Amino acid sequence: MVNMCMIYNPTTKEVLVEDKTDVAWKFGHTFPGGHIEKNEGLYDAMVREVYEETGLHVSHLESCGTVEWFNQDPLYRRLGFLYRTSTYSGTLKQSDEGKIYWMPLADLNEQNTAESFMKFLRIFTDPHAVDATSPVMNGSLTIIPKEAPK
Amino acid sequence: MVNMCMIYNPTTKEVLVEDKTDVAWKFGHTFPGGHIEKNEGLYDAMVREVYEETGLHVSHLESCGTVEWFNQDPLYRRLGFLYRTSTYSGTLKQSDEGKIYWMPLADLNEQNTAESFMKFLRIFTDPHAVDATSPVMNGSLTIIPKEAPK
Repeated sequence: MVNMCMIYNPTTKEVLVEDKTDVAWKFGHTFPGGHIEKNEGLYDAMVREVYEETGLHVSHLESCGTVEWFNQDPLYRRLGFLYRTSTYSGTLKQSDEGKIYWMPLADLNEQNTAESFMKFLRIFTDPHAVDATSPVMNGSLTIIPKEAPK
Repeated sequence: MVNMCMIYNPTTKEVLVEDKTDVAWKFGHTFPGGHIEKNEGLYDAMVREVYEETGLHVSHLESCGTVEWFNQDPLYRRLGFLYRTSTYSGTLKQSDEGKIYWMPLADLNEQNTAESFMKFLRIFTDPHAVDATSPVMNGSLTIIPKEAPK
């Protein structure tokens, strides 16, 4: 299980992005996140990951929804949990996993973000987009329901 | 994995409740929900469960958060996914699993709801309460973080 957090500054309309350099398929801008430990609650895991990657302590997380990648044989799903917050404190530090900086939310696009990231962004920003699925691991994600209005 | 949906009518300020009669620990009011099939997406599972139990078709689900019950030996977690919506159509039908009717949201309390339900209700209604955990299966739930303001 994995997670990702959109940290949004409503005054500047900027989000905190990472430019991942350690994982090939993650090239491009993405948000802080990582893996949830087996014995760790989902909220605590998100707070921990953001702190480890950015040095910021986040609170008042809101639930945005989920992404689901299915493996068919054997059948199981990998789950991703998406949160957002505008409440944070501490000093931004750089991470071994890539450069971290603020950029305007409106500047994120297909070209400058990681694989599938714009589907994630839809879930982060549209209250009625709460799930995206792929029938294969690391496959292309489809927002569910497919006909959901913006 | 399980799910539960708060169906809210903003005009009447009522929610759709079930009075579960088939499961001892569920005595008292609760919301529609059930089990997620292993090969079923989370959104589709919630729509299906509501339809099966109430006859209503829901859409425009919002993500409220999660509940987590941990089993310690062997270590695993059972996950519950909570959604809410005010968009529904169809005709209310009764279910074998208990009577279903509308009641004022404000009338739900510790006395007339199922075990742990008021913790669920906090997650359904407080955007900053998005997770509740129990260190044991079916144990008492704690909202995380414990100090989260209302």
